[in-house]
Amino acid sequence: MILRISIAILFLQIIFSATAQQPFTIGAKYSIPSQALKETREYYVYLPPEYNSNEYAPAKYPVIYLLDGESSFHYFTGLQQSLSKGPYAYMPNAIVVGIVNTQRTRDLTPTDAGRTAFYDKSQTMFKGGGGNHHFIQFLTAELRMHIDSVYRTSGYSIIVGHSFGGLTAANLLLNYTTLFNAYIMIDPSLWWDDGIMLRQADSMLAKKDFGQANIYVAMAHKEIIPQDTTTDMERSILGFETLLKKYSPKNLRWSFQYYPGEDHGTIAVPAAYNGLRFIFDGHLVQVKQAVFNPQLVTTHFKKLSAQTGFSFQPSEPYLDWMGNFCQKSGMLKEAAAFYEMATKLYPQSRHAGEVWRKIKAK
Amino acid sequence: MILRISIAILFLQIIFSATAQQPFTIGAKYSIPSQALKETREYYVYLPPEYNSNEYAPAKYPVIYLLDGESSFHYFTGLQQSLSKGPYAYMPNAIVVGIVNTQRTRDLTPTDAGRTAFYDKSQTMFKGGGGNHHFIQFLTAELRMHIDSVYRTSGYSIIVGHSFGGLTAANLLLNYTTLFNAYIMIDPSLWWDDGIMLRQADSMLAKKDFGQANIYVAMAHKEIIPQDTTTDMERSILGFETLLKKYSPKNLRWSFQYYPGEDHGTIAVPAAYNGLRFIFDGHLVQVKQAVFNPQLVTTHFKKLSAQTGFSFQPSEPYLDWMGNFCQKSGMLKEAAAFYEMATKLYPQSRHAGEVWRKIKAK
Repeated sequence: MILRISIAILFLQIIFSATAQQPFTIGAKYSIPSQALKETREYYVYLPPEYNSNEYAPAKYPVIYLLDGESSFHYFTGLQQSLSKGPYAYMPNAIVVGIVNTQRTRDLTPTDAGRTAFYDKSQTMFKGGGGNHHFIQFLTAELRMHIDSVYRTSGYSIIVGHSFGGLTAANLLLNYTTLFNAYIMIDPSLWWDDGIMLRQADSMLAKKDFGQANIYVAMAHKEIIPQDTTTDMERSILGFETLLKKYSPKNLRWSFQYYPGEDHGTIAVPAAYNGLRFIFDGHLVQVKQAVFNPQLVTTHFKKLSAQTGFSFQPSEPYLDWMGNFCQKSGMLKEAAAFYEMATKLYPQSRHAGEVWRKIKAK
Repeated sequence: MILRISIAILFLQIIFSATAQQPFTIGAKYSIPSQALKETREYYVYLPPEYNSNEYAPAKYPVIYLLDGESSFHYFTGLQQSLSKGPYAYMPNAIVVGIVNTQRTRDLTPTDAGRTAFYDKSQTMFKGGGGNHHFIQFLTAELRMHIDSVYRTSGYSIIVGHSFGGLTAANLLLNYTTLFNAYIMIDPSLWWDDGIMLRQADSMLAKKDFGQANIYVAMAHKEIIPQDTTTDMERSILGFETLLKKYSPKNLRWSFQYYPGEDHGTIAVPAAYNGLRFIFDGHLVQVKQAVFNPQLVTTHFKKLSAQTGFSFQPSEPYLDWMGNFCQKSGMLKEAAAFYEMATKLYPQSRHAGEVWRKIKAK
């Protein structure tokens, strides 16, 4: 057996030295059998850089479910990582789960509607829709259940969808209201089936309690072509904004943004970025203010928790960084305040506790 | 030997089935010994999705050199991939080379200046600068030479730098003018050494011919704190804009953008996105216009080539997609026009040629 292993190791070494490179990896690809969809589904998982670090106490993370994972996972995780970096973070670190399509129209539309093709009126586009309910079953009862059992998830969940994905997010908001905490709807296809989601919104936005959900709706610039999907799309998205304004839905914090310089395709990147910024607005505490007033951090996170309907706390690495920074700058009282917060919030963390005790002993 | 291989394969299978996952990979990590820097340097390479496709004739690609690769490679390649996708591409597919720092201050500053620390005036920050010349030697004579020998590069090169990286980009523009075609300078540290780059710009912007270079300069929102680097930074970047306006430098196309909602850290993502959009402005041809007027594509690329000082052509996959799209929509004359362009530009491509001949034969 030892001989076999050493032969195998030798063989591996030969393979690796021949290529003389290492892959640049940002996540992992998995698959899971779905009873709801009667097929095996592929998904990608991105974990925060510190997820497996031994330095800090194991933390729990929000989960962002990202539709159209095959095209969105790379840039979205890049944006997310950038926004949650270091002491200047605009949002918490998060786990990102990208869901790969099999039959996109089936899964991401609520009804079997289709529509006449633009160039050739004898053709019908988007046939075979209407599987949204089964897809949502898969997404929440199967995939999410699995993710929650395998990773340290905090319970705060965000859904991000573009185009048909945005339509799915709208359906989740209106008809499955408690499943997600926040929704990023990027140029959503609210024109679908003669505006069915818009009609539902008209009755539901007025009466439902949205339990402190946050929604961000982005609309791209449209070329004005009569009877084209893009024009329908504009009308329906603007219609949704009108309803949001009209009803001021209960416990729903929302933002609508029009992007004159982006089209239906390119809007995804800046809208994902701004959507995350909107949901976690207030997460960032200016370092140069916080060093003189550590209490600001507590105030910020209280406000963020109220706004999201979920208890968010500053992360242990953040408090540790701030503590160290104050200490290095000779501000021992402020350093102690950050270490004390860390010790209270993360009692398992020996790291923060030790440094704090050292500071106190001085 | 066969026995050894089969044992090794068996062993590999055991390792892989135990994890039941595949990595999500966006590039590869390499290293190269540098004589200029007297150390081995790590770098990452991202290749366009179709780089190794057998479907099309082998194409050549622009190369984007990205500083601070360890923090920028993930999001930047995500943005780049998004912007160059399919028939709605705002820019060509490109190779991205991310350079990983070792001694950042040494490599990315032109002089050994340093500065007094903000919180503790007895300390000096950013000691040991001034290695920019050696770093540029490494970047262009060693790394780029190697990249050009290993990959299919078109000769069009872009440098992207943030903060000290932006300072390096400014130095490249002013003192090594012909090495790059385009420069993205994100909140560049033009305050360095009492504004040394600004002083050089004042004499050089007036007299140099920039050979149709494109530069994009982005400035973040600054907190106004007296004598802080952020205030110096604002003054110096605004000073650079003033000089660009004053001299209208010869054959230099430039754009300056202020980001009121972004700070020095977060500006990198939207500025990289907008910088690429600026350089390749005009690359996108609206599909809905092009299908009725294929000649528009030629017009667009002529204009783009004039603007960049480099011959850009529509890619073979793009022309193929447009041809197929027109064909499916029953617009055979327009389809033939796209296939003809493909056949002319990519004579090696049997794919486009065959389909075109079929259309012509009808």
